[in-house]
Amino acid sequence: MHLKMKIFNSKLAKTLKKRTKMKKYTSLEKNELSALLDALRRDYGKYKNMGLSLDLSRGKPNSDQLDISLPLLSEARPREKCFSENGVDCRNYGVLDGIPEMKRLFSRTLGIKEEYIAVGGNSSLQLMYDTISRALLFGVLGSERPWIKEDARKWICVTPGYDRHFKMTELFGFELLSVKMTPTGPDMDEVERLVKDPTVKGIWCVPKYSNPTGNTYSDETVRRLAKMECGAPDFRIIWDNAYAVHDLGESGDELLNIFDEAEKYGNLDRIFYFTSTSKITFPGAGVAMMAASPANLKQISQFLGVQTIGYDKLNQLRHTAYFADKEAVHAHMMKLAAFIGKKFDITLSALDGLRGLGIAEWTEPRGGYFVSLDVLPGTAKRVYTLMKEAGVTLTDVGATFPYGIDPEDKNLRIAPTYPTDSDLAKATEILVVAVKLAALEKLMNA
Amino acid sequence: MHLKMKIFNSKLAKTLKKRTKMKKYTSLEKNELSALLDALRRDYGKYKNMGLSLDLSRGKPNSDQLDISLPLLSEARPREKCFSENGVDCRNYGVLDGIPEMKRLFSRTLGIKEEYIAVGGNSSLQLMYDTISRALLFGVLGSERPWIKEDARKWICVTPGYDRHFKMTELFGFELLSVKMTPTGPDMDEVERLVKDPTVKGIWCVPKYSNPTGNTYSDETVRRLAKMECGAPDFRIIWDNAYAVHDLGESGDELLNIFDEAEKYGNLDRIFYFTSTSKITFPGAGVAMMAASPANLKQISQFLGVQTIGYDKLNQLRHTAYFADKEAVHAHMMKLAAFIGKKFDITLSALDGLRGLGIAEWTEPRGGYFVSLDVLPGTAKRVYTLMKEAGVTLTDVGATFPYGIDPEDKNLRIAPTYPTDSDLAKATEILVVAVKLAALEKLMNA
Repeated sequence: MHLKMKIFNSKLAKTLKKRTKMKKYTSLEKNELSALLDALRRDYGKYKNMGLSLDLSRGKPNSDQLDISLPLLSEARPREKCFSENGVDCRNYGVLDGIPEMKRLFSRTLGIKEEYIAVGGNSSLQLMYDTISRALLFGVLGSERPWIKEDARKWICVTPGYDRHFKMTELFGFELLSVKMTPTGPDMDEVERLVKDPTVKGIWCVPKYSNPTGNTYSDETVRRLAKMECGAPDFRIIWDNAYAVHDLGESGDELLNIFDEAEKYGNLDRIFYFTSTSKITFPGAGVAMMAASPANLKQISQFLGVQTIGYDKLNQLRHTAYFADKEAVHAHMMKLAAFIGKKFDITLSALDGLRGLGIAEWTEPRGGYFVSLDVLPGTAKRVYTLMKEAGVTLTDVGATFPYGIDPEDKNLRIAPTYPTDSDLAKATEILVVAVKLAALEKLMNA
Repeated sequence: MHLKMKIFNSKLAKTLKKRTKMKKYTSLEKNELSALLDALRRDYGKYKNMGLSLDLSRGKPNSDQLDISLPLLSEARPREKCFSENGVDCRNYGVLDGIPEMKRLFSRTLGIKEEYIAVGGNSSLQLMYDTISRALLFGVLGSERPWIKEDARKWICVTPGYDRHFKMTELFGFELLSVKMTPTGPDMDEVERLVKDPTVKGIWCVPKYSNPTGNTYSDETVRRLAKMECGAPDFRIIWDNAYAVHDLGESGDELLNIFDEAEKYGNLDRIFYFTSTSKITFPGAGVAMMAASPANLKQISQFLGVQTIGYDKLNQLRHTAYFADKEAVHAHMMKLAAFIGKKFDITLSALDGLRGLGIAEWTEPRGGYFVSLDVLPGTAKRVYTLMKEAGVTLTDVGATFPYGIDPEDKNLRIAPTYPTDSDLAKATEILVVAVKLAALEKLMNA
């Protein structure tokens, strides 16, 4: 049984006891609200005077977590350790799609055929940018023309979602279409309806421990995405499996293999799969990869040779030297889980102070890097400002929505991994006060 | 005085002695040609039966040369060595344009202001691709529209030149305009004439030890490029200074600073400057950079943040730890020069066997990675085939010209760095025979 659950069970009794005393804010009288508001303002005032500088906005590891991966950098590399298993001098030019041992490691860890895999540099975001940029200039397999020549182009964004995804397709001139995220993935009825439009060229998916909700797509969702009928013959699913092995304990979510499903329905070329070791080893110096059908990779390879002299193979060697196999990756991820799990526990434990008040809902993911917090509609921006003034940075409100606009002004993305445990405890304690305060202000003025 | 020159002077006497016996092939009678041809065919036959497998096509270092840079990889990197001088954890996300010490190293080594420099990943070719790709999709500073929306777009290619440059602009749909390379750089009268056309958007330049001629642009050429009047308000010079510090001895060529010149004439934004440490340290794991005016960098930065999470900063640290300053780079390059200089000596010494025959001309560069060999017009492809059949790979004939077509079928790019010294000696010995043989065949049939 995994760490987090154990901690929670021990706390459950206390929490349940407290909850019985709670009443929903929405059912309180004005005078009750007013008294609560006064008390909270005093609490908040204390925090504000502490001169804090805390950050809950960054979906990135802190330096202590990165120390867990230091063995990757612990060895000198004499000449004899600079060659790949098939004899390539990894210091030199050449090999556009990765050394065999790195492909194999990705293949076994992710359950993807080796021939689908092309290893990249240190950034899967860069690979996604390249992929869409190429599609604009040259089209993809099945395109009637380069995407830039289409009169209109649209892209589906599952919301709340990853801000950098949305910004990228916005930058590339796509009209962004919002589809709501549910606990089982995007609202598939809506997705199936939208993709009938031939100007809809793709969809962003973070299928496992989705950013920011932490939800994992159900088998049915994966199947429907693989199977759905698309108006565009060159429709693409960007399958950003950024948190593929990022479970917070032994019992992680299971995600269906989308390649297997897509193949069943003759839609193998629909899938552009990405991931990286950024949150396995080093965010700035990991190894990224793209996986796609051999036909897709062949189409791309004609451009790749002109685009680069090959990605850093020495860094691939560093990774394969440290991770002998899939099991080594898993063992490493369990070390990270112990570290990160504690931060999720701290966060969720604090959020428990909002339970039963009718002013907030949040996710309790079994992996990934985020907790998604929905506050009373119309108060997210206010919470952001209250936090800012108390010295705590949150992710910009709206960042998780296309064009940076949260239509209900309610979603906050909480990133617990970057602060130290004590900073995180303090920051989430203040967060609970700010959420309550903003809600009370709103209800008082209702 | 540098190594190469010393070796040459010692050989000069012998060479001059031999030369007096030589007659130009072009002034020989048919019976003389026929006798020579028979003798050469016998020589060639011997080589052909040796079952050789040699390669003169690759402008890349061999593994022994790369060993010189192994100190970069010789140290373990504990946590305390993972931070930049301004306290950034280089293992983590962040810093799009490079850590300060890497910018400073490039700045001092190249004589470019630090604020002009943006550090990239391991490939300057990738940075160039990104730059032109962005110009197509979004335009550059001064563009009236994205380049892709222009009805026509053209690009100047200095020939012979670098095949990957030409292929890139061909891929991006530019019409390629050839301008001849001279010992002082491109034929500037022709360049100045062509750039008046507003559909001409740029020019590829390898200004120092140009690929493949090894010539360096004269001060006048640099000035005229900086000063010339361009029809396109968003004309760009791609200044690929790949061999900026790659002298074969202490007395290397001097290249005028194009930023200084461009600034004088108010054309600072015209310059997109690139280089990398690929041929200083490791071709596959070096550090690349782009330099441009602050206004240009600002225009680019709005896209860069969407494009990537930042380039590998740990590899920047590896470089700045090894190269304390400009002087350390120079000392390192002199070690490489001793190694590479020998290979140039072997090549030029062999080519000396063609001197005075009226069938070949070649360059004797003071740096870079190539010797450019012009054979009797109409025989370059034949030489390539003869070499291939004898087991020696040359760079494809025509590769140094737009669309892969050498209009005179005469240029061969000789890349001496990859083979071992003994392989190189053998390969260049055969080359001389093949050049003679092809010339004789041609003259016999004339």
